[in-house]
Amino acid sequence: MIDNIAQSPLYRIVNPRSIAFLGGSNNYASMGTSILSSLLHMGFPGPVYPVHPREKTVQGLAAYARVEDLPEVPDLAVMVLPTRITVQALDACGKKGIKNVIVVTAGFREVGGEGPALEAELLAAAHCHGIRFIGPNCIGVANPHQKLNTTFMPSRAIPGFVGLASQSGSFVTQMFDYLAMYGMGFSTAFSVGNAADTDLVDCLEYLGACPRTRVIGLYVEGIPRGREFVRLAREISLKKPICALYVGGSEAGRRATLSHTGTLAGPDRLYSGLFRQAGVIRARNVTELFDFCWALGSQPPPGGDRVVIHTHSGGPGAAAADACGRAGLAVTPLSPETLEKLAPLVPHTASVNNPVDVTFSKNPQDYFDKLPEILLSDPEKDMLLSYWLVPDQVALRPLKGMGLSEEEAAEKSLEWVDAMTRQVAGVLKASGKPALGFTFRDLSERFCRGLIELGVPVYPGPERAVRALWSLVEHRRLADKIRASDGAF
Amino acid sequence: MIDNIAQSPLYRIVNPRSIAFLGGSNNYASMGTSILSSLLHMGFPGPVYPVHPREKTVQGLAAYARVEDLPEVPDLAVMVLPTRITVQALDACGKKGIKNVIVVTAGFREVGGEGPALEAELLAAAHCHGIRFIGPNCIGVANPHQKLNTTFMPSRAIPGFVGLASQSGSFVTQMFDYLAMYGMGFSTAFSVGNAADTDLVDCLEYLGACPRTRVIGLYVEGIPRGREFVRLAREISLKKPICALYVGGSEAGRRATLSHTGTLAGPDRLYSGLFRQAGVIRARNVTELFDFCWALGSQPPPGGDRVVIHTHSGGPGAAAADACGRAGLAVTPLSPETLEKLAPLVPHTASVNNPVDVTFSKNPQDYFDKLPEILLSDPEKDMLLSYWLVPDQVALRPLKGMGLSEEEAAEKSLEWVDAMTRQVAGVLKASGKPALGFTFRDLSERFCRGLIELGVPVYPGPERAVRALWSLVEHRRLADKIRASDGAF
Repeated sequence: MIDNIAQSPLYRIVNPRSIAFLGGSNNYASMGTSILSSLLHMGFPGPVYPVHPREKTVQGLAAYARVEDLPEVPDLAVMVLPTRITVQALDACGKKGIKNVIVVTAGFREVGGEGPALEAELLAAAHCHGIRFIGPNCIGVANPHQKLNTTFMPSRAIPGFVGLASQSGSFVTQMFDYLAMYGMGFSTAFSVGNAADTDLVDCLEYLGACPRTRVIGLYVEGIPRGREFVRLAREISLKKPICALYVGGSEAGRRATLSHTGTLAGPDRLYSGLFRQAGVIRARNVTELFDFCWALGSQPPPGGDRVVIHTHSGGPGAAAADACGRAGLAVTPLSPETLEKLAPLVPHTASVNNPVDVTFSKNPQDYFDKLPEILLSDPEKDMLLSYWLVPDQVALRPLKGMGLSEEEAAEKSLEWVDAMTRQVAGVLKASGKPALGFTFRDLSERFCRGLIELGVPVYPGPERAVRALWSLVEHRRLADKIRASDGAF
Repeated sequence: MIDNIAQSPLYRIVNPRSIAFLGGSNNYASMGTSILSSLLHMGFPGPVYPVHPREKTVQGLAAYARVEDLPEVPDLAVMVLPTRITVQALDACGKKGIKNVIVVTAGFREVGGEGPALEAELLAAAHCHGIRFIGPNCIGVANPHQKLNTTFMPSRAIPGFVGLASQSGSFVTQMFDYLAMYGMGFSTAFSVGNAADTDLVDCLEYLGACPRTRVIGLYVEGIPRGREFVRLAREISLKKPICALYVGGSEAGRRATLSHTGTLAGPDRLYSGLFRQAGVIRARNVTELFDFCWALGSQPPPGGDRVVIHTHSGGPGAAAADACGRAGLAVTPLSPETLEKLAPLVPHTASVNNPVDVTFSKNPQDYFDKLPEILLSDPEKDMLLSYWLVPDQVALRPLKGMGLSEEEAAEKSLEWVDAMTRQVAGVLKASGKPALGFTFRDLSERFCRGLIELGVPVYPGPERAVRALWSLVEHRRLADKIRASDGAF
C-alpha cells in the first residue's frame, strides 16, 4: 500500500499538468473530437496540444502535425486513433519523452484474431520507452477536482467523494449526471479497459491513498492479480470502505464480459468469497453499487444492526420493516424510556412499536425534529430510517386557508419547507449515528433535494435505503473480522 | 366472478353520482378538510354535500347541520370523523337511506383495547341499514376516470390502467405522482383499511371486471378468505395479469402489519405458494409492484423467455446480461440470419454475441430503428431490452460544429431527439413483442420522457427492466399452468 498518490504509476495520468491529444479534429462525428470537447468543456487549466497531420487548428487550439513538434514534453498523451497506427503513435510519444498515456483506441485483445498480438506490441513499445499507460479499449479517466475529463460525454462532472475503478468505460462517462441526481460526484474515476499495463489493482491502490476519496467503488468483470487484490483491499478497507459489483457470475454475464473486455470471469461463489476475504462489500447491481457509495461515503459507522423506522404512513413503514427483515437488520421494539418520551407527541391512532408510525399528526413540525431526535437518542438503536413525504405544495392548502394570496402562500410554503430541511439535517448529523431517508417523491423536489444537498441521503423507495443501511453494517462486520484476524492472512 | 362492475358492492363507492361529506371543515389542519379539498380539486362533477354541525358553508359549499337535512339521498357518504361518533353517524346515514359509505376514521381494530368491539358495532349498524362500506382506518378510493379522489394528497391523479387494491392507504394517496413519473395512472384504486365489510377480494373482483383496468396490483398485509381469493384470482389472471406485494413474510414485516391494520400475517412461503396457485405474480417490493404493472399493462405477452439486449455500451450491456441470468431469462446468441443482417450496420469493434453492443457508431440513427427492427425480427428472440442514453444535449456539439448558432443547434437537436423517439416507438410497437428500455438518465429528460409518453417503458437501471421482463414471462407461465390444469382446482 502506498501512502501518497504521487507514488502511484497512475499519478500523472489523473493529475497531468499538460496534455497532448492525438485523435481530436474538427469533425464532430468522431469520438476523439467528443473527448477533446469534454476535456476543454471541463476547463482543464493546463495546456492542451492537439496533434493532427493536416489541420492547423483543432477546436480553436493550435495543432501540431507530429508529436515531435510539440513545444514541450507534456505530462500525458491521450490517444483516440485508428487501431493500426496506435503502436506507432505510442512509439512517437516515447521518443518525445512522454511517460504517461491513455489509450482509448479499441480493437485489441477484446476482438480476438490479431488483437492480442497487437496488444502485446503496444505493451512492448511502452516498456521500451518506460511509458505507463491505461487502456487500450478504455474511456480514460475523470478527476473533476482537477477539471480533468478524458471521457466523451458532455457533463457537469461535479467533484465528489466516490473513487471508481471500472472495467467499463460507460460507468465512468455515463454516470456523472446519474451521481449528480444523488448529490454525488467522483473524486477520481478510472476506466481501465483491457488493462494491458495498469489494472484495477493499481487503481485501487491509488484510490486508497487519495485523500479526496471517502469510498471506493469497483465495477468488476474479472479480478486480476487476485492475491495482491485481496492483500491491498484488506488494508485499504480498514481506512475506507470498498464496494464492488461483479457481473461475470451468471452464464449470461460471463459471456457478455468475455466479448466486452476479453476478461475470463470466474464462478459467482468464488468471487463472493474473494470479496469477503478482501473486506469488500458486494453490490448486487449497478444501482446498489452507487447506493452503497452514497451511504458509506456520507454516514458514520453504525454501532450495530438495529434500525428504528420513522414514518407517518403505515404502508411505507411496513414495507421498510419487511425490507429490513429481508436484509437481516433488526427492527426491535423501543425502550420504555423512549416510549415515555414519545407519548406526549403522538396521537392515539399512532403505533410506536417500531416502525414508529405517528399517522396523521396535528403538529407536523414534530416529525422533523423532536421525533428523529428522540429515536436517535435511544441507546438500543443504531440507525434511523425516515420516510419523507413533503411535496412542494404541502403547506399551500392550509396557508391559503388562512387567507394568504397564492403568491404569499407559495413563498411561505417554501420557507417552511427550507426551515424543515435544515431542522432535519441538523438533528440527524448531530446524532453521530447513520440516518437515511426514503421517499416515493421525485428527488428533484425541494425538500428531498434540500436534504440531499445538506448531505442526507434520501433513497427512492425503502428497499434501496435498507440495503444501503445493510452496506454500513456489512462494512463494519468485514473490517472487524479483518482486525480480529490480526493480519493472519 | 362478475361480468360487470355494476354487480359489485363497491360499484357506487367508486362511481358515485353524489356525495355527502362528514368531517370536512374550514380548518386546513384537519385531515377531513384535506380530503374534501382533494375531492373538490379533482373536479368531481356531481353534487358534494358537506355535513357540519356549526359551519354554514364549508370550502365554499353550502353545509348541512345533519345528514337528515340533505336535499337528496346521495350515492355515497365519506366519513372522516372522531372515532367515538362514527357509529352514530353511520346510523344517521342509514336512516337517510344512504347505502354506500367510506369510513376513513381510524381507532378501531388496529389499536386493540376497545377497538375491535367498536368495529363490530360499526358493522352491525351497517348490516341493520343494508349499508356497504369500505374501511374503517382507510384512505378511501380514487377513480381518476370519474374525477373521484377521496384521499388526502393534492395531486394530478391522471387516469390510467393500473387497478390497485391496497391494505395501505399510503400506496393509494401517495403514489399518484410516483406513477405519473412513469407515465402511469390508476384506473381505480382502493384502500381497504381494516376491511370490516368489504375486503381485498371484493376489490379484486371489481378490478377484474373493470374495463379500464389492464393490470391489477395488490398490496397485501394478509389475504382474507384465502379459498375465494385463489378461485377468483385464477379466473381473472387468465384475462388480465395480477401482481402482489406481501410484506408480512419477514418477522419485522409481520410485527409492522399487525400494528398497522391489525392483520395477522402468515409465513412467507405459504404466501408464495398461495400466489402461485392463484396465478398471481409476486413482487419483492413496492418498486417492483409498480414496475411489473408498467410492463404487464403495456406489453404484449412474450412467446418465451429469450431476451436480446441492444446496447452501444459494454458495461450496461454486461450488467443487463447478468441481471437476465439472475432472473432466469435466456440470453442466447443470435441466429446466423440475424448476424448477416447486422453485419453491414456495425463497426469491427462491435460485439454481436448478445448483448448486441454496437460500441461507438458512425451512423447513430441505425441504433434507433434498423437495429431494434432486425433484433425483434429474429424468430428465436422473444423480447427486446434496449439501453437508452440520449441526453438532451446529445446532438448539440456536432450541430454547433457545423456552424449553427446556439439557438438553431438547440432547436435542431430537439427536433432530432423527437424524431428518434417516434422512430423507436414505431418500430417497437410494430413488432408485437415485448420491448422495454433502461437508462441511467433522468426519466424527465426529453428522449426518455418521449418514449414513456408513447407507451414505451424505460426503467431506471437494467435490473428493474429485467425483472419487469421476468414478470411478463412469469404471468404467461402461471396462466399456462392454470389453463393446463383444466379448472381442476
